Amino acid sequence: MAFTSYAAPEELLGTGRYVLATYCLQAPSGADIGRLAEKFAVGQTVGTWVELPTITDQMRELYQGKIAGIQDVPPRDIAADGQEQSFFLIRIAFPHINFGRSFAALLTTLLGNDASTSVQAKLVDLHFPEEYAQQFPGPKFGIKGLREKLQVPKRPLLLNMIKPCLGFTPETGAEIFYATALGGVDIIKDDELLTNPSYLPVEERIKAYTQARDRAYGETGKRTAYFVNITDRLPDMLEHAKRAADLGADGLMVNFVFSGLDALAALAADPQIQLPILAHYAGSGPWIESTSTGMDSLVYLGKLARLAGADIVLYNTPYGGYPYLRSKYMQMARLLSQPYYSIRPAMPAVGGGVTPGMVPTLVKELGMDLVLAAGGSIQGHPLGTTSGAKAMLQAIEAVAQGLDLQTAAQESPELRIALEKWGQI
Amino acid sequence: MAFTSYAAPEELLGTGRYVLATYCLQAPSGADIGRLAEKFAVGQTVGTWVELPTITDQMRELYQGKIAGIQDVPPRDIAADGQEQSFFLIRIAFPHINFGRSFAALLTTLLGNDASTSVQAKLVDLHFPEEYAQQFPGPKFGIKGLREKLQVPKRPLLLNMIKPCLGFTPETGAEIFYATALGGVDIIKDDELLTNPSYLPVEERIKAYTQARDRAYGETGKRTAYFVNITDRLPDMLEHAKRAADLGADGLMVNFVFSGLDALAALAADPQIQLPILAHYAGSGPWIESTSTGMDSLVYLGKLARLAGADIVLYNTPYGGYPYLRSKYMQMARLLSQPYYSIRPAMPAVGGGVTPGMVPTLVKELGMDLVLAAGGSIQGHPLGTTSGAKAMLQAIEAVAQGLDLQTAAQESPELRIALEKWGQI
Repeated sequence: MAFTSYAAPEELLGTGRYVLATYCLQAPSGADIGRLAEKFAVGQTVGTWVELPTITDQMRELYQGKIAGIQDVPPRDIAADGQEQSFFLIRIAFPHINFGRSFAALLTTLLGNDASTSVQAKLVDLHFPEEYAQQFPGPKFGIKGLREKLQVPKRPLLLNMIKPCLGFTPETGAEIFYATALGGVDIIKDDELLTNPSYLPVEERIKAYTQARDRAYGETGKRTAYFVNITDRLPDMLEHAKRAADLGADGLMVNFVFSGLDALAALAADPQIQLPILAHYAGSGPWIESTSTGMDSLVYLGKLARLAGADIVLYNTPYGGYPYLRSKYMQMARLLSQPYYSIRPAMPAVGGGVTPGMVPTLVKELGMDLVLAAGGSIQGHPLGTTSGAKAMLQAIEAVAQGLDLQTAAQESPELRIALEKWGQI
Repeated sequence: MAFTSYAAPEELLGTGRYVLATYCLQAPSGADIGRLAEKFAVGQTVGTWVELPTITDQMRELYQGKIAGIQDVPPRDIAADGQEQSFFLIRIAFPHINFGRSFAALLTTLLGNDASTSVQAKLVDLHFPEEYAQQFPGPKFGIKGLREKLQVPKRPLLLNMIKPCLGFTPETGAEIFYATALGGVDIIKDDELLTNPSYLPVEERIKAYTQARDRAYGETGKRTAYFVNITDRLPDMLEHAKRAADLGADGLMVNFVFSGLDALAALAADPQIQLPILAHYAGSGPWIESTSTGMDSLVYLGKLARLAGADIVLYNTPYGGYPYLRSKYMQMARLLSQPYYSIRPAMPAVGGGVTPGMVPTLVKELGMDLVLAAGGSIQGHPLGTTSGAKAMLQAIEAVAQGLDLQTAAQESPELRIALEKWGQI
């Protein structure tokens, strides 16, 4: 039978043997994309296009990629001359026996060779069969577990990243932490640029900050969680993770783009590590910003980071200067928290120009299961850090109760001043 | 949990409860397509967007559509202002309990309401779970069965549609049939415009044509099959089908666009009808020709017609004046014959300017499992119909044996004359 390199995606998924990857590329509408897809499917698996006597039929059956669909966009059936440019979505099924449960091995197959060289295409979607997907840890806490741990059952969570980013002593950092926690912030985390420098190492930071945290708790009765950035060389990062809970940290943060999804998954899968993990997207730009190479942010942050075990995935709003698409920013929250086998949902966290006046819009667009990452509007509040935190929290609580911000501001001087300073969108 | 209207397509397919339909539409890149998709998924199932007390959670769980994916094309993650136009592929999962195994009911859900009104979109792909797909008959013969019946094991098949299309007596038709069959044509079929007119009714046609067929067989030893167009009102069409074999016909033809996919499926599913079916695409133009409404030809002809039971699906080459896309014409052949559960493959048949000189190109592009539908180049050959058929067959046999047409023409005067008249592409 001809065309056995082609197969229906729903049937391939049913076998449980394939990961289905969809790519997008541009070509003349009349081009024979099927042939190109075949070249790619073979080139990224059994690795040759010409007939080799060493490649048996059984090898092809077990290890060769298959073409599981080609879609042109716009969907043309007729055309003037076939030279008009179209986008083509090519779906390739890769036998996961080829790469197993390593994200690095998976991504080498998906993006490691032809996609970035002979075939210039962007990876835009991934479908995993159930057993394969469930080999990955997924979030250890998920949205429900995170809310229980932080004792915030319903409203959006408020997160602050300590500013300045780096270059201060443990004592200075602890003072900033204390002032911020006094305002009732739910989570304080390190900046992504602060990892394990000699002047402010992870362990010392945890000790100093958690003392500040407990001091604020003594005064307010509200407990702030500290998420420590454990990004470091290996195996040091794993050691940080294992000790962090004993030292008093409430959560972990990892710059997963550079540490690798496998390292993130190792943290999430380790039963000795019982802390939620915030995955920071720093460095994802080059992976996601082109329309013709790399991968879609929904794949990278929305699917892979969740599967690897991020309880919180931080990404950008379109309102802080970075031109992230509003449509995608909304889909990201949906993708992170939609049902996916028995993988727990992850909490979307957004940063980028977050001020109290933006809270109604952000919650309307992304929902209540949301972490609002506010930096400048907390540390930059005219009345100081504590007031900045209070203003954000007042805005969040007003929105959660269905109150208008202007109404809420009448009884919240911090909020009123923030709205005067940064406005409302 | 929020966003339960969203679900992973691979998980939905795994439940076996959903048909997944993908639509394409154009919108500003920053638009909230997710909300639009939700409206569509609800509007085409439980049928209301506002909260109605009569709709219970259980009803929603069983009957409501889900959003199984949104893909923007080109795949943008950043954008200047979100006002750039993007294409969006929206995948909606419909519980098939809503429509069951009727194609008419299925298409009413898929295309019957919002898609053509409030949401202007083109249906571009369909995924069926195995048990649902296998409720449909699929081809009774398939490529293998068809080749066995016609005793042509390997080379492309030659089909002729009797010209003129209509307006002649049974005797005249039989003479044309005889002259064509003498040239060794594998299949002769009626024109799609010839159904069951009083002057040339189905039964009389079958009797007259099969006599002509047997007369030619007596002279050549080559048996030509007659595929009779049984398109008619119901239940007459079914009656034609049941009597056709007894009367001597070798196959059936149905104008399935107008008769309906359900009628085609009824023919294929009936154990009393043991003839292969050729599905004619006449009338599919308005369904497929827009980029923003209707459905892709690959869905209609490549997927639905096969599932409904077409052993042969006739469609256009891009070489006969109709501006069908070359890329799609090639994908159609692949889709019809690729593995799909235990549904047999269907044989692609192409018409539109088919001359002997085009055979190498058509076979190179579509493969050996192919029916070549030649009309004008057979009945219009300078030496007459019989020679026209011979010329086509000589070209097919040359290509099947790997011979160059010019070489073959040295020993084939009919082919030589045809190449001189129509050239070679």
